[in-house]
Amino acid sequence: MRFRILKKSKNSRARRGIIETKHGVIETPAFIPVGTQATVKGMTVDQLKSIGYQSLLCNTYHLYLRPGDKVIKKMGGLHKFMNWDRPIFTDSGGFQVFSLGYGLEHGVGKVASMFPGEKGGVLHGETEHVIKKEKLTRITENGVEFRSHLDGSLRFLTPEKSIEIQRNLGADLIFAFDECTSPLHDYVYTKKSLARTHRWAKRSLAAFQGGDPVTTGRGSPNEMGRQALYGIIQGGAFRDLREEAAKFISKMDFDGIGIGGALGNTKKEMYKILGWFTPLLPENKPKHLLGIGAPDDIIQGVKLGMDTFDCVMPTRIARNGSALLARGGSYELLNLKLGRYLKDKNPIDKKCGCSTCKSYSRAYLSHLFKAHEILGPILATIHNLWFMEQWMKKIRQSI
Amino acid sequence: MRFRILKKSKNSRARRGIIETKHGVIETPAFIPVGTQATVKGMTVDQLKSIGYQSLLCNTYHLYLRPGDKVIKKMGGLHKFMNWDRPIFTDSGGFQVFSLGYGLEHGVGKVASMFPGEKGGVLHGETEHVIKKEKLTRITENGVEFRSHLDGSLRFLTPEKSIEIQRNLGADLIFAFDECTSPLHDYVYTKKSLARTHRWAKRSLAAFQGGDPVTTGRGSPNEMGRQALYGIIQGGAFRDLREEAAKFISKMDFDGIGIGGALGNTKKEMYKILGWFTPLLPENKPKHLLGIGAPDDIIQGVKLGMDTFDCVMPTRIARNGSALLARGGSYELLNLKLGRYLKDKNPIDKKCGCSTCKSYSRAYLSHLFKAHEILGPILATIHNLWFMEQWMKKIRQSI
Repeated sequence: MRFRILKKSKNSRARRGIIETKHGVIETPAFIPVGTQATVKGMTVDQLKSIGYQSLLCNTYHLYLRPGDKVIKKMGGLHKFMNWDRPIFTDSGGFQVFSLGYGLEHGVGKVASMFPGEKGGVLHGETEHVIKKEKLTRITENGVEFRSHLDGSLRFLTPEKSIEIQRNLGADLIFAFDECTSPLHDYVYTKKSLARTHRWAKRSLAAFQGGDPVTTGRGSPNEMGRQALYGIIQGGAFRDLREEAAKFISKMDFDGIGIGGALGNTKKEMYKILGWFTPLLPENKPKHLLGIGAPDDIIQGVKLGMDTFDCVMPTRIARNGSALLARGGSYELLNLKLGRYLKDKNPIDKKCGCSTCKSYSRAYLSHLFKAHEILGPILATIHNLWFMEQWMKKIRQSI
Repeated sequence: MRFRILKKSKNSRARRGIIETKHGVIETPAFIPVGTQATVKGMTVDQLKSIGYQSLLCNTYHLYLRPGDKVIKKMGGLHKFMNWDRPIFTDSGGFQVFSLGYGLEHGVGKVASMFPGEKGGVLHGETEHVIKKEKLTRITENGVEFRSHLDGSLRFLTPEKSIEIQRNLGADLIFAFDECTSPLHDYVYTKKSLARTHRWAKRSLAAFQGGDPVTTGRGSPNEMGRQALYGIIQGGAFRDLREEAAKFISKMDFDGIGIGGALGNTKKEMYKILGWFTPLLPENKPKHLLGIGAPDDIIQGVKLGMDTFDCVMPTRIARNGSALLARGGSYELLNLKLGRYLKDKNPIDKKCGCSTCKSYSRAYLSHLFKAHEILGPILATIHNLWFMEQWMKKIRQSI
C-alpha cells in the first residue's frame, strides 16, 4: 500500500490523497460502504461500481463465524469470493467486544445521537442477529472469549488470531486488534483497557510482521503486493488517554491509523474529542475514522485530517425507507414509508443523478416499501450510496 | 395489438410468432415473468431487460388493493409507475377467487405437482400474505365479494369492475373476469360456474368495447394504440365442459385466448386435458396458458399451440435458494442452501451465460443464503430468469 497526499487545504488539516493497493486506488477523502457479510446488503458488485465506489469494508468477526475465514481462503480469498476486485478493508473483530458485550449491556453506541432524527446510540456493524442480552464476552490479557451469536459456540479472539483471520480473508487494508470501550466506562477501566489495547497493538504488529513476507510481512520486494496494517486509537472520552494513545500508536510501525472507540455523547463532543488528539497524528499516514459516516460527521472528520470513513448508516436507513436528501450544504432524511408520498410523482431528489431518481417516483418507492417488496430497499440503497459518493466528490473537489 | 404467426412446426401445433403492441413486441413462444405488485421481486428493470425479457405480467387483484388502480392511473399508468416501457399483461383478478377462496379451503392448487421435487399443490400468484383460513370469498351472479387480505375491508369484483381496474392500470394485454374452479369441485358445480364465467365473459367484452375507443374500445384508427382483451377458458378437468368453453370463447370477439383453471392432479393429466380442447381454438389468436411455467410444462404447452406462459415458479424458488439447472433436454433443481455447496468453487452452471454464473461461485451463493443476505435471492433470481429466457430461445429456434 502506498499513500500519497495530493493537495492540502489552507483552512484546515483536510487533505486530498490517494491510497494505492494492488487491487487499485482509493481517492481520499472516501466513504467506504460496509459489506458486513461479504455483501453490501442488496447491491450487486456492478451496481456498486457504477455508483463509483472504489473500496468496501467487511467485518472480520462476521466472516470468521460464517462462512469462516478458512472457507474464504480456500475459495481464493475475499476478493474472489465476493467478486470485488477493488481494495477491501477488514476491521479487527475487536469492535464486537463492544457491540456484543458492553454495548448491549450499557444500551449505548459510539455516540448518543449519530444523525438527525435518530434517538439513542448507534452501533457500528450489523447487530440484527443479536438476541441475547446477557454478557456474551469475557476479556483477558490474552484476548476476548465470546459466544457466537449464531450458534452459541465458545470462541476466542486474540491479536494473533485476528491477524491470522484477516490474512486468510486477504483484504488490502486490515486493522490491529483492539478493545472498544463504552461511553459509560469510567476513567479507571478505560485507562486499564487502553494499556491492554496497546499491548495488543504490539502483538498485532508482531504477528503481522512475522507473517509471510510476500503477502503480509515487511520488506517485500513489492510494496504494493502485501496487506497494510492500521493501528487503532482508543481512550474513550478522556483527553489524556486519547493523547497518550495517539502518541503511542503514531510511533509504531503501522501503515495507517484507525480511530475507534467511544466518542462522547453528542456530535459536538465527538468533534471536540477528535480535535484533542488528531493534531498529534503523523501527517503522512492514511487515517480511518471507524464506524462514523453521517454526512456532517464526515465533513468535520475531513477537516481534522481523516481520509477514510466507513459506516452502515446510509445503507441501513435505506432499508428502513429513509432516503438522504441534500439541503444546501447539509442534508435531511425523507421517509418513503409515509403515506403522503404515495401520490408524489417526483423522484426522491430532482437534482440527483442516481439510477433510482432518474427512473422512479416517490410514489413507486413508497408503494414498494408499503408492499414489503425488496426492490424498495434496493432502490433506496442505490440512492443513498450515490448521495454519499457525490458528497465525497464535492469534499474532494473543495480541497 | 397485432399477432402474427411467423412459422409453424410440422410435428405439432407449435408456432413461432410475434405479438406487437404500442409498447413493443413479444417474440413467442414466450415466458412472461410475474411482477405481482408492479415489481418482479428483487429485480431492477435494467436487470430484467439485460436478461432479455420483453414483457411482464402484473396481478390486478394485488394492485387494486395496493396501491390502488386509481393511484397508478394518476401516476401515469402502470408502465410509467414501474418504469417498464415494454408490453405488460394484467390478469383479471378472478384467479384470487380461487387462491383466496377454494384454493385455501381445499388446500390444493392448479395441479397436484407442478415441478420435480415439489409436493402438494402450487398456487399461482402471491399468497404469502394470506393468513386467514376461513372462507374469504362469496360468489354471486354479479361478481365476487371478498375481504382484502391486507386490511379485511369488504370488496366487490365484477366483470365491469375488473375491466375498469385493468383500464386504469393500462396494461397492453388484459383478461376477461372469470371464476377459477378448484380440482376438488365436482362436475355439477364446475358446469354451473362455467356458465357464469361465460356470462361474465360477455359482460367483460361489453365493458371493454364500451370503453374509450382510443384507449380500450374497438374501431380505433390505430389498432396498436388500444388494449387487447383475452377471454379465458375454464371447465376444470371435465372434457365436455372444456370443449364447450373452447367453442364458446373462440366464437367471441376476443383478441386472444387465456387458458385457466384446474388442470387435473398430475402433469400428465394436465397435458391430456389441454389436448382435449386446444385443437378447437382459432389458430390466428395468441394463446396464453395462465400460471403454468415449469420448463417441461412449457414444452408441452408449446406443442399444443400455446404462445405465452406466466408463472411465479422460477422467481419464487430462486428466493428459496433453488436454482434451475439444465440437464440434457430436461432440468433439475440445485438447492443452494445445502452445506455441500459452501466449498464449491463452481458457478451454478458452468455453461450458463448469466451474470450470476459468470461472477459468483456456489460457495458464495450458499453463504449468502445461509447468512440471510438478500443478494442471495437476487443473484438466484437473475440465474433462474436467464435460464427461462434461454429455454424459450431454444424453443423458438427449434420451431
